[in-house]
Amino acid sequence: MARRSRRWRHDRAAVRRTGTTGHAPGTVNVDPHAPQPVITLISYGPDQFHEQPLRSLDELPALLDKAPVTWLNIDGLGNAAVIQQLGRLFHLHPLALEDVVNTHQRAKCDDYGDILFCVARMVQGPPLVTEQISFFVGPRGLVTFQEDIAGDSLEQVRERLRQNRGRIRQAGPDYLLYELLDAVIENYFPVLESYGEVLDELDREAPYQQIGRKLHDIHRLRSDLLYLRRVIWPHRDALQSLLRGGHRQVSAETLLYLRDCYDHVAQLIDILEIYRENCTDLRDFFYSKLSNRTNEIMRMLTIISTLFLPMTFIAGVYGMNFDWMPELRWTLGYPLSLLLMAAVGMGFIVFFWRRGWLRNSEPAPVEEPAREPNDNNHTP
Amino acid sequence: MARRSRRWRHDRAAVRRTGTTGHAPGTVNVDPHAPQPVITLISYGPDQFHEQPLRSLDELPALLDKAPVTWLNIDGLGNAAVIQQLGRLFHLHPLALEDVVNTHQRAKCDDYGDILFCVARMVQGPPLVTEQISFFVGPRGLVTFQEDIAGDSLEQVRERLRQNRGRIRQAGPDYLLYELLDAVIENYFPVLESYGEVLDELDREAPYQQIGRKLHDIHRLRSDLLYLRRVIWPHRDALQSLLRGGHRQVSAETLLYLRDCYDHVAQLIDILEIYRENCTDLRDFFYSKLSNRTNEIMRMLTIISTLFLPMTFIAGVYGMNFDWMPELRWTLGYPLSLLLMAAVGMGFIVFFWRRGWLRNSEPAPVEEPAREPNDNNHTP
Amino acid sequence: MARRSRRWRHDRAAVRRTGTTGHAPGTVNVDPHAPQPVITLISYGPDQFHEQPLRSLDELPALLDKAPVTWLNIDGLGNAAVIQQLGRLFHLHPLALEDVVNTHQRAKCDDYGDILFCVARMVQGPPLVTEQISFFVGPRGLVTFQEDIAGDSLEQVRERLRQNRGRIRQAGPDYLLYELLDAVIENYFPVLESYGEVLDELDREAPYQQIGRKLHDIHRLRSDLLYLRRVIWPHRDALQSLLRGGHRQVSAETLLYLRDCYDHVAQLIDILEIYRENCTDLRDFFYSKLSNRTNEIMRMLTIISTLFLPMTFIAGVYGMNFDWMPELRWTLGYPLSLLLMAAVGMGFIVFFWRRGWLRNSEPAPVEEPAREPNDNNHTP
Amino acid sequence: MARRSRRWRHDRAAVRRTGTTGHAPGTVNVDPHAPQPVITLISYGPDQFHEQPLRSLDELPALLDKAPVTWLNIDGLGNAAVIQQLGRLFHLHPLALEDVVNTHQRAKCDDYGDILFCVARMVQGPPLVTEQISFFVGPRGLVTFQEDIAGDSLEQVRERLRQNRGRIRQAGPDYLLYELLDAVIENYFPVLESYGEVLDELDREAPYQQIGRKLHDIHRLRSDLLYLRRVIWPHRDALQSLLRGGHRQVSAETLLYLRDCYDHVAQLIDILEIYRENCTDLRDFFYSKLSNRTNEIMRMLTIISTLFLPMTFIAGVYGMNFDWMPELRWTLGYPLSLLLMAAVGMGFIVFFWRRGWLRNSEPAPVEEPAREPNDNNHTP
Amino acid sequence: MARRSRRWRHDRAAVRRTGTTGHAPGTVNVDPHAPQPVITLISYGPDQFHEQPLRSLDELPALLDKAPVTWLNIDGLGNAAVIQQLGRLFHLHPLALEDVVNTHQRAKCDDYGDILFCVARMVQGPPLVTEQISFFVGPRGLVTFQEDIAGDSLEQVRERLRQNRGRIRQAGPDYLLYELLDAVIENYFPVLESYGEVLDELDREAPYQQIGRKLHDIHRLRSDLLYLRRVIWPHRDALQSLLRGGHRQVSAETLLYLRDCYDHVAQLIDILEIYRENCTDLRDFFYSKLSNRTNEIMRMLTIISTLFLPMTFIAGVYGMNFDWMPELRWTLGYPLSLLLMAAVGMGFIVFFWRRGWLRNSEPAPVEEPAREPNDNNHTP
Repeated sequence: MARRSRRWRHDRAAVRRTGTTGHAPGTVNVDPHAPQPVITLISYGPDQFHEQPLRSLDELPALLDKAPVTWLNIDGLGNAAVIQQLGRLFHLHPLALEDVVNTHQRAKCDDYGDILFCVARMVQGPPLVTEQISFFVGPRGLVTFQEDIAGDSLEQVRERLRQNRGRIRQAGPDYLLYELLDAVIENYFPVLESYGEVLDELDREAPYQQIGRKLHDIHRLRSDLLYLRRVIWPHRDALQSLLRGGHRQVSAETLLYLRDCYDHVAQLIDILEIYRENCTDLRDFFYSKLSNRTNEIMRMLTIISTLFLPMTFIAGVYGMNFDWMPELRWTLGYPLSLLLMAAVGMGFIVFFWRRGWLRNSEPAPVEEPAREPNDNNHTP
Repeated sequence: MARRSRRWRHDRAAVRRTGTTGHAPGTVNVDPHAPQPVITLISYGPDQFHEQPLRSLDELPALLDKAPVTWLNIDGLGNAAVIQQLGRLFHLHPLALEDVVNTHQRAKCDDYGDILFCVARMVQGPPLVTEQISFFVGPRGLVTFQEDIAGDSLEQVRERLRQNRGRIRQAGPDYLLYELLDAVIENYFPVLESYGEVLDELDREAPYQQIGRKLHDIHRLRSDLLYLRRVIWPHRDALQSLLRGGHRQVSAETLLYLRDCYDHVAQLIDILEIYRENCTDLRDFFYSKLSNRTNEIMRMLTIISTLFLPMTFIAGVYGMNFDWMPELRWTLGYPLSLLLMAAVGMGFIVFFWRRGWLRNSEPAPVEEPAREPNDNNHTP
Repeated sequence: MARRSRRWRHDRAAVRRTGTTGHAPGTVNVDPHAPQPVITLISYGPDQFHEQPLRSLDELPALLDKAPVTWLNIDGLGNAAVIQQLGRLFHLHPLALEDVVNTHQRAKCDDYGDILFCVARMVQGPPLVTEQISFFVGPRGLVTFQEDIAGDSLEQVRERLRQNRGRIRQAGPDYLLYELLDAVIENYFPVLESYGEVLDELDREAPYQQIGRKLHDIHRLRSDLLYLRRVIWPHRDALQSLLRGGHRQVSAETLLYLRDCYDHVAQLIDILEIYRENCTDLRDFFYSKLSNRTNEIMRMLTIISTLFLPMTFIAGVYGMNFDWMPELRWTLGYPLSLLLMAAVGMGFIVFFWRRGWLRNSEPAPVEEPAREPNDNNHTP
Repeated sequence: MARRSRRWRHDRAAVRRTGTTGHAPGTVNVDPHAPQPVITLISYGPDQFHEQPLRSLDELPALLDKAPVTWLNIDGLGNAAVIQQLGRLFHLHPLALEDVVNTHQRAKCDDYGDILFCVARMVQGPPLVTEQISFFVGPRGLVTFQEDIAGDSLEQVRERLRQNRGRIRQAGPDYLLYELLDAVIENYFPVLESYGEVLDELDREAPYQQIGRKLHDIHRLRSDLLYLRRVIWPHRDALQSLLRGGHRQVSAETLLYLRDCYDHVAQLIDILEIYRENCTDLRDFFYSKLSNRTNEIMRMLTIISTLFLPMTFIAGVYGMNFDWMPELRWTLGYPLSLLLMAAVGMGFIVFFWRRGWLRNSEPAPVEEPAREPNDNNHTP
Repeated sequence: MARRSRRWRHDRAAVRRTGTTGHAPGTVNVDPHAPQPVITLISYGPDQFHEQPLRSLDELPALLDKAPVTWLNIDGLGNAAVIQQLGRLFHLHPLALEDVVNTHQRAKCDDYGDILFCVARMVQGPPLVTEQISFFVGPRGLVTFQEDIAGDSLEQVRERLRQNRGRIRQAGPDYLLYELLDAVIENYFPVLESYGEVLDELDREAPYQQIGRKLHDIHRLRSDLLYLRRVIWPHRDALQSLLRGGHRQVSAETLLYLRDCYDHVAQLIDILEIYRENCTDLRDFFYSKLSNRTNEIMRMLTIISTLFLPMTFIAGVYGMNFDWMPELRWTLGYPLSLLLMAAVGMGFIVFFWRRGWLRNSEPAPVEEPAREPNDNNHTP
C-alpha cells in the first residue's frame, strides 16, 4: 500500500496546488513544509572551476562575473524571501517564479526575452518518486531550483565539470542546460528498466494460484506507467519548442545536442508505449487463463456429477422398501444392479470421451523451453 | 440518484435549448425560470476603486468613464429587456447576446472587432454543478453575464481589486479578463481533488462484498469525469485562439499571463485523462476480482461435490435391499465400506492437491504494507 | 424491428446507389419510386413577399427577377426532366445535379464558380429517418431540392420570411442559406433530446430481470448514435469549408452567422460523443451487474450444496444395511447422528461466514436517494 | 474455409513479393504463374472509335497517333518482354514498371514528369477477390495493366466509348483516367452492399443456439471488412494527391470530376467504418446474450438443486436404519415427513420468488414488431 | 521461453544503455562483450570494382580516392579506438559516433552538413532478432557500422556491385545508401510472412482443447508484432525526413527510388496493422468460443442434475423406513413409483426441449468447406 499511497499523494498534491487559490498571479507562496534552501554556486570556464556553498545570498553579488559561466543551484523551496531576492537580482519574471514554487508544473520551456525558463521533472523508483527542477538560462549563467534537498541526478554533470571532461567547460550556459536536461532524461532509463524487469517477471509461466496476485501487480504497474507517460510526454513538447524556437540563449551547436536529447525522450515514450500495451496484452492473457480454468473446473464438476448422479439414482431405486420388488429376490440381482450402474457410468464416459471432454485442454505449456537448442543458431 | 439526475438534467437541458427553435437568429429569448438580474458595477484605476450595486440600468451611463476600467457584472439572465438594453449601450453583437442567454455554449472566444466575446464555464461539486459565464471585453471595460445569482468563483479577484494586491489595478480590462478566466479555471482544481479522493477511496483494498458497490461508484465517477472532460476541452481551444489571435483588446504582457492560464488547462486535462484511465483500469481490475472469486467459489463447489458424491454413491449401494448381498453379512463389511469411502475421498483430495486446487489462489494481498519500511529512504 | 429495418434499409440504400452503376458521370437518373416534384416559388425583398406553388416550370421565367431574392424549392425528385430543365435554366453543373438525385451524399459544400452547391441532411425521429436537402446558391437566389414531399424543418424560416421577423428579408440569398442550414442543424437537437431521455431511462436503477432487455436497447441506441455521428460529422467539414472558403456568394456578415451555426454542429458532436461513451459505460456497468449476479447465484448454489451434500452422505451411511453396524443398535444412535449432521452443517456455515460468503454483496444501492437533501444547497 | 484461405493467400502473397528479393530495383520480374498478356487497343476522338485486339506489340507503332486519344489495355502480366518493350516505347520509368508486376501495391499516384502513374485495386465478392490495375497517363493516351485476364469493372466505360455517351469521347486521356478510376471505385459499392446484407442478417433476432454460429460469421466478416478498409484507404490518399498535385496531365475540368470520385471514396470509408463498428457492437451484444444465458441456466440449476437437495436429505434421514427412531413408529410419521419436505421446498420457493429469481429475465424481445404500425406515419 | 526471453533481453538492453550514464555526451563507450570489428573496403565505379578485407585502419588512407565511390563496412563494435580513428579520418560528429555504439537507437536520419547520418534496424526471425546498422554518407563514399559480425541482409547488394547489375555502379553513394536501406526494408517481408503463416495456422478450425494453447500463442504473437511495429514506424519518419529534407548528399534521381522504399515501409506498416487487428479479432473470437463452451457444459450439467435429482428424491422417499407407508404394501407400488420417476424425468425433458436446451448450439462449423466449389468461378 505504501508505494501506492505515495504516488497518489503525488497526484492529489498536484491538484492541491489549488490550495494557493486566492493569491494574486505571480506571487511566490511557498509550501510551509518545504525544506529550507541550500544554495551552491559553481562558476567555471575553460581554465577555471570554483564550487562553493553559499550561506546567504548577500555573498552572491561579489562572486558573480568572475568566470565565463555561473551555475547557481538552489535545493529546497521553503524560503520565499530567498526566491524573491534571486528574482530581483536576475530579473526573473514573477510568473516563472510562481511556477518554480508550484512544484506540479508540466515540463515546459517559456521564453521571457533575455531569460529562457524551463521546467523538467526528475524521477526515481520504483516506488515512483518525482521531483521538479526549474532552469533559468541567461547569457552568462544558469539558475536551477530543485524541489528537494536530497540527492539529484546531476552529480555526473558536476563531476564532468570538476574533471573538465568533454566540452562542457569550453561551452556556454546553453550547453550546461543541455547536459543537465540530458542527465534528467537519462535517469528515466534505469527507472523504466526496473519496470521492464517487473513486466518480465509477470510474463513468466506461473501456476493458476498466482494469477490473482499478478493481476493485482499489473494493475499497480499500469497505474505507474500511466503516470510516467503523463510526466514524460510534456518533456517532448518542451524539447520540441526548444529545438524550433530560435531562442536567443541557445546556440546552433547546442541544438545538435538537444536533438539528441529529444531522441532519447522519443525512445522513452516508445518503451513506455510498448510496456503499456504489453501490460494490456498480459492482463487479457491472464483473463483468458482464468476463463480457461473456470472451464476446466466446470468440466471436472460436470463429469463427476454426471457419472455419480445416475448411479446413485439406481442405488436409490433398489434401496426402496416396496414389498413387491422382484429384482430384490433374484440371486443375481445385486451383481446385475452393479453391472447396470457400471454400464451407465461407462456410457457417460464414452459420451464425454467422444465430445473430447476427457482430454486435457492445455497439454504442454511446459514444453516450450525445449525450443531453446535450435535457438542458438540465431545471432542477436 | 440526486446527483445523477441533476447532472442529466444539465445534459438534457443542453439539448433543450432547441426549445428556442423557431426564433430568428440573434434574438434574446430568456428562460422564464431564470432568476432576475442583479447588476454590480466596479470601476477602478491605480488610485481608485468603486463598487456599487445598480438598481436599474438607467443609473449606468452617468457612472461610466469615471475610472480607467469599468467592470459590469450581471448575475441572472431572467430579463431580456436588460440584456438588450446593455447590448445597445455597449454595441454587443446580437449573436453574442443570443449565446449569453443560451446557457449551454461550449467555451469559446469570438472576435467582433471592437469587442472580444468569451464564454467559459464555472464548476462546483461534487455533486457536479456548472454555470456559464460570458465576457465582453471592450477598450475601457468588461461586461460579464453569469447564469445564476448564487456565489461565484470570482470573489478572490474582487478582493484583490479592493485591496489593490498584485498588478490588477494598474492593468487594463484584458488583464481583468485574464484574472477572471484564471479564477474560473483554478476552481476546477478543488473539484478534481474531490474526485481524486473518491478514486483514492475506490482504489483501497476491500472485501469482495463491496465490489458491486464500487463498480456502481466507478460508473458514476466515469460519467462525471466524461462530462468534465467535455466541459474543459473547449476552454483549451478558446485560450489557444486567444493566444494566437492577435486580438486588438489583448496586450502582449497579458498574453504571457494567458499562456500561464493555458498551462493550467493543459494540466487539468492531463489530470482528467489520468483519472479516466485510472477508472478504466480500476474497473477492469475489479472485473478480474469478480472472475477470480467466481473461480474460487467454483473450486469450492467442485471439491465438496466431488468428495461427497462418490461417497454417497457407495453408501447408497450398501443401502440397497437385495436379498443376496454377501458383503452385508460380513462382520467387517461396515468398517470396510467406511474405509472404501475414505479411500475414495482421499484419492480425490490427492488428485486435487496435485492439481493445485487446494492451495488458496490469492495468498497475501495484505502483506503489501510490509514494503513500507524500505520506502522511507526515498524522498519525494 | 421496424425502426431497425428502416434504418438498415437506409444504409443499404446508401450502397444501392450503385444501381446507377453504368451511367455516364453527370447523368440524372431518378429513382422510379421517388415522388413527383412539388415546386414552390418564394420571392422577397425588404418590402415585398410572394409565395406561390408552380404547376409547371414554364411559368418560372416570367416570375424570376421580380424581387431581390428568389427561393425555388423542389420537394420530390421523381422527374428527371424537371431537374434537367432547372439545370439548364440556372446553369447548374451536371455533377451537382447527379448528387441531387443520388440521395445518399455526405454533407458537403462545392464551389462551382458562380454557383455554390451544398448538401445537408435533415433528421427526424426516433425512429430515425433522414432526408437529403441540396442547395444551389447563386447571386440572386437559391434553389433547394428535397428528397421527400412530406414536411420539412424549414417552416420556421418561411414563417420568418412571411412575417418579416429578424434581418432575413433585408439580407441576400447567402443569409437565406444560413437560415436554412441553421434550421436543419437545429432540428437535430430535439432528436438528440429524445435519445438523451432514452439514455436517462436506461440509467435508472432496475431489477436484474430487465438487464437483458436494457442491453438490447443499448445495442439499438448505439447503432442509432453511430449512424447519427456519421451523418453529422460531414456537416462540420462542410461548414468549415464554407467558413474558410472565401466563396463569392457568401458575404462577410453572413460568415459571422455561419460561425454560430458551426458552433452548434460542434455542440451536437460533443453531445453525441458523450452519449456514445455513456452508452459504452452503461453497457459495461450492466455487464458487471450480470457478472455480479452470476457470482451471487453461484454463492447460493455452493452454500446449499455444500450444506446438504455432507449431511445427506451421513444419512446415507446410516441407511446401509450391514448386519454389523453397532451404532444402529445404540439407543442414542439416532439423536447422535442428527447431532453429527448438525455439527457438520454448522461447521460449513462458520467456514462460509468467516469467508464472508453469507453477507450480501450489494447491500444498499437503494440508499442513494438519501443524498438528496444535502443536494439542495447547490444551485445549478 | 475456402473463402478464408483464399483471402489469406492474398495477404500472404502480399508478403511473398519478397520472393523477388535479390533483384535490382527497377527490374521487371514476372510471376511465372501469371497469365500471358492479352493486349487491346482502343483509339478514339469526338468522331471516331477503333477497338482491336493486338496479336503482337510490333503492330502497335503503326496504329498510334491516328486518333486524339489512345488507350492500350494489357490483361495479364506473365510476359516480362512485352512489359519492357512497352516501357521503352512509352518511356515508362523502370520503378513504375516494377510496381506494375509486383501486384501487391497500395493504391497511389506518382508523378514521373511527362507520365502520371497510378495504381488502384479492383474488388469482387464476397468471397473477396482483388485485382491490381495500373495506369500510365501521357499527353496523348493511357496504358493500363491488369493483373488478370478475367472480366474487369471497366466494361461500362468501354460501352460509353463505343456509343459516344456523355462527354468521354470529347475529352482527353485524363478524363478517361477519371472514368476508369470511378468505375473501379463504383464497383466497391455492390461488394459493400453484400456485406451490408450479411450484417443485416446477423442482426436479426435469433434463438440462443445460433449465437456461436453468428459469432463465427462476425469474426469472418470483421476480417473481410478490415482487409477492405486497408485496401480502400490508400485510394483516398492517392486521389487527394491527384487533386492537390497540379499534375501536368490533369486538366482543371477533370479535377471537378475527380473531386466527385474522392467523395465516393469518402462515402465508402464512412460505410466501412459504420459496418466495422456495427460488427463490434453486434459481437458485444451477442456476448451479453451468452452471459445472460449462462445466468439463466445457472438460475435454473440452482433452483432445482436447492429444492431437491434438502428434500432428499430429509428422505435420507428417515431411510436410516437406527433401531430407535420414534418417528418411524408414528402412524402419521410418513405424511408428516412429506409435509416437512413440502414445507422446506415451499420455503425455498418463497425465498427465490422474493429475490425475483422465478421471473424470467428477458420477457419480450419478440414484442418489438408491434412498433411497426406507428412507424408508418414517418416518411423516409 | 527461449524466444521470449531473448526478445525481452533486447528490450531491457534497450533500457540498459543507461549503463553508460555518467559518460560525457559524444563519448564512444563500447560494450565490453561486443565483437571485435571486421573491416571490409569496397570501392567501385562504372568500370572498376575492388573488394578487400582490411587488417588495420592504417592501410585505409592509401586505398581511398582510387575509385569514384568507396564503401567501408565495419562489422562489430567492440573496439572504441577503431571507431574514433574512423571518426577523425572522415570528420564524423561525436554525437553520431555515440549513436553508433549505443545500439538501441530508433531509425532516424540526421544531417550533419557534409555528412548524412542514418540509423536503421535489420530484422531476422522468428525468433525475432534485430541488429542496428548505421550509415554515414559523404560526397565520395559511405561508411556503415553493423552491430554484429554474423551475416547481414546486404549480400544481394554486394552481389549486384560485383556483377555490375542494374545502375548501381553508375550511381553515387546516395544510390548505394538507397540500395542498402531497401535491402534492410525488404528483409522485413519474409519475417512478416512467417508471422502471417503463424496467424493462418491459428485461424484454422480447432477443437476446444487447443484454445488455451492458441491464446498463449496469440499472446506471444501480439508481443512480437507490437515490438516490430515499434521498430518499423521510425523508419517511416526517417525516410520521410530524407524525402523532404533536401539533403546535400541525395540527388533528385535517388529521391525517386527512396520514394519507392518509403512505399515499402508503408506497406509493411499496413500488413502489421492488419495482423495486429487480426490477432485481436482472433483472440476475441476464441474468448467467445470459451464462453460458448462454458455454456454448453453448464447446459449439460443442468440437464443431468435436473433429471436425476428429482428421481433420486422419489427413490429416497420410498426408501424411508416408516412403519405406515401404504404405497409400499401395494402390489403395483414399485412399477408405479418407477412410472412416477419416468414421468418427472419426461416432464423435465419436455421442459428443456421447449426451451431449446436440447438442441446443440453449434451445429455445423464443419460445413463450411462445402462452399469451395462455387468458389472456383472467382479468379483472384
